[in-house]
Amino acid sequence: MHKKNIFYAQSGGVTAVINATACGVIETARQYSAQLGTVLAGKDGILGALQENLIDTAFEPDTLIAGLKYTPGGAFGSCRFKLKALQENREPYQRLLEVFDAHNIGYFFYNGGGDSQDTAHKVSIMAREMGYPLQCIGIPKTIDNDLPITDTCPGFGSVAKYVAISAREASLDIASMCTTSTKVFVLEVMGRHAGWIAAAGGLYSEAAETGPQIILFPEVPLKKSEFLQKVQQCVEHYGYCSIVTSEGIRNEQGEFLSKGNSIDAFGHAQLGGAAPVISQLIKQELDYKYHWAVSDYLQRSARHIASQVDVDQAYQLGCSAVTAALAGKSDIMLTIQRESQRPYQWSIGEVPLAEVANQEKMLPRDFISADGFFITEQCREYMLPLIQGEAYPLYSNGLPAYVTLNNNLVKKTLAAYRPSPQ
Amino acid sequence: MHKKNIFYAQSGGVTAVINATACGVIETARQYSAQLGTVLAGKDGILGALQENLIDTAFEPDTLIAGLKYTPGGAFGSCRFKLKALQENREPYQRLLEVFDAHNIGYFFYNGGGDSQDTAHKVSIMAREMGYPLQCIGIPKTIDNDLPITDTCPGFGSVAKYVAISAREASLDIASMCTTSTKVFVLEVMGRHAGWIAAAGGLYSEAAETGPQIILFPEVPLKKSEFLQKVQQCVEHYGYCSIVTSEGIRNEQGEFLSKGNSIDAFGHAQLGGAAPVISQLIKQELDYKYHWAVSDYLQRSARHIASQVDVDQAYQLGCSAVTAALAGKSDIMLTIQRESQRPYQWSIGEVPLAEVANQEKMLPRDFISADGFFITEQCREYMLPLIQGEAYPLYSNGLPAYVTLNNNLVKKTLAAYRPSPQ
Repeated sequence: MHKKNIFYAQSGGVTAVINATACGVIETARQYSAQLGTVLAGKDGILGALQENLIDTAFEPDTLIAGLKYTPGGAFGSCRFKLKALQENREPYQRLLEVFDAHNIGYFFYNGGGDSQDTAHKVSIMAREMGYPLQCIGIPKTIDNDLPITDTCPGFGSVAKYVAISAREASLDIASMCTTSTKVFVLEVMGRHAGWIAAAGGLYSEAAETGPQIILFPEVPLKKSEFLQKVQQCVEHYGYCSIVTSEGIRNEQGEFLSKGNSIDAFGHAQLGGAAPVISQLIKQELDYKYHWAVSDYLQRSARHIASQVDVDQAYQLGCSAVTAALAGKSDIMLTIQRESQRPYQWSIGEVPLAEVANQEKMLPRDFISADGFFITEQCREYMLPLIQGEAYPLYSNGLPAYVTLNNNLVKKTLAAYRPSPQ
Repeated sequence: MHKKNIFYAQSGGVTAVINATACGVIETARQYSAQLGTVLAGKDGILGALQENLIDTAFEPDTLIAGLKYTPGGAFGSCRFKLKALQENREPYQRLLEVFDAHNIGYFFYNGGGDSQDTAHKVSIMAREMGYPLQCIGIPKTIDNDLPITDTCPGFGSVAKYVAISAREASLDIASMCTTSTKVFVLEVMGRHAGWIAAAGGLYSEAAETGPQIILFPEVPLKKSEFLQKVQQCVEHYGYCSIVTSEGIRNEQGEFLSKGNSIDAFGHAQLGGAAPVISQLIKQELDYKYHWAVSDYLQRSARHIASQVDVDQAYQLGCSAVTAALAGKSDIMLTIQRESQRPYQWSIGEVPLAEVANQEKMLPRDFISADGFFITEQCREYMLPLIQGEAYPLYSNGLPAYVTLNNNLVKKTLAAYRPSPQ
């Protein structure tokens, strides 16, 4: 039997658990060494394939591979790079297949969000057209939780846990100080188009009493006067108001608050960030003392407080990509299927890549309260299972012992890739 | 024997571990119930004493008190409120003693930073002058770590641990993406006058390789051209540059970057925050894609990743306040003494309140590298012991089970406090 190598690439924004998927792929491939070659990882994602920068994971000891399970970031590098449509430019797809051929690659595992699943689909089509034997398997990943069909996306559970905890901790802080100091706190979280991450701010069930009390979603345009009234009610009732806002919050004209056009909306210039704009609006209209935080990359890299369920799912998807490949599957994306709610049980499913490519799943309307400023019990029901368990990393000298791989590159055999001018 | 009650108040910005001190006070006082009355806590700190809003902790069950050890924020409320100098206005001090007298209070425990120690000292002087028998004991607390004499301040070790971990996690994220995306990341942390918290960003010993690579301290005025050169070197060498900046960073004219005057310094208006100003400067001069985060209250309330050493010290200080009171001590602040470095050993010491009042301890010059952009090995030696151990809170349903006390107020016996106009 002629053993083929696996090409694995990480794509788009990284997460606290994408390396757990890499760990699952590599550990499982090692178990099937009789049937499979080595796992070659793309340096900086798909760019590694185009540029023939392939990392030979065979050089990584088992202990380092095990360490991937608790190391955030993308261990091989990721990239933001979208291949053009096949009909526009076939060249990069041909190059990919040349590189795959030169390195005996028979499996293409692409670990990313919607764009990446689209790319995996196109590569699959191209390989069929050219008669190159390649099994293409998409592995979901995105903190945004916006992929269709799959119940959730690895990376989301951990960022949700981080946001739920951080928002509560900060609320306890403000609650302590509000008599003489800060009255309003605004925490900005990611999610430019979908409010999944912001929604996690409401996961404590007794939220209103101890905060946060208001959540702002990209799905709900900000009605200035209703919002200010709600803030004032909170301050009058609880003594303070704790707010979680999505970075993607928009005004009633559909413009992002965090862009330069916030000058028109609220009369203030700023350098980016929805939290400072919202804080300034509150200061101007209600004159409350405020603080704001922007958690940015901290939220999606916070492996120190990752969800055990999320880590388990990310890891299992990596394992299942290998077993699906061995079972002859191709042109599919693996999914997480919710089997039961109480107790929460899940399994790995699959869906044709054509069905997932370039779709975004928004927060359902019934996950948002009638007034648009909080989540509903349905939302909490859906989300709580995803943040269960604390997958603490190993520590050394008071700090997480995150690993760094050797990342040895395979010797190149092709000429350098020079895309012809389009 | 006539048992006296203890008055305990939390003061100033709260921390992830100030409630551990409260836990130590209350648990120890309960052990000595033969000699001591109840612990009455000030609602919203010293304001609770002035307004006769006293929380009777006797109503709190042992389980809730035990829960204080892992609950952030200030369980009884804190305040930013500085009493005027005795010679300016004796009235509030007299009022405090009236309230203490009305509620059989013989011990005043004040849990706070420099201002609070000063207040404790003044209350002590006033009590002596008026012949009121009161033992005043200051208990240190501040994330800023800027109190003199004590080796460290409870609250600091936990914020240091949070900043060290968060800065590393975000750096791993950027490192993964830098080839095609963000090149520069700026994390803003607290510390308006002293750079202790920012310094914690450099605690990983192999920092330069995996970031952060630059730390900006309030003690070192920002030299624009040297800074930009350093950023450029990092991006050219590592592919990215990860920066931790103190909120208190100033330009060479001594002005805060985060204030409105940053318009003059760098030509841009903004709503506050040093991180966006620094990011914008880099964008303008070097044209690197950037991201920034402002951790604000998240850092000081991050009980989910508190340092075990910090929690132990905070708790022990609370216990020791009670035993010091029983030993007849007064007009002292308790301290942490470093007994040995390897292994790290510490004990509780004491210092006259007069020696600590209103002093700030800056980061020593030899804790900052020669070029002013990083910490030294001396700094790491000092700081690493303070972040050892992970004092994880209890979890329930995927979230920390932080407690909320009943906070029953004692019946008032005095007329409402109406300060006469000054």
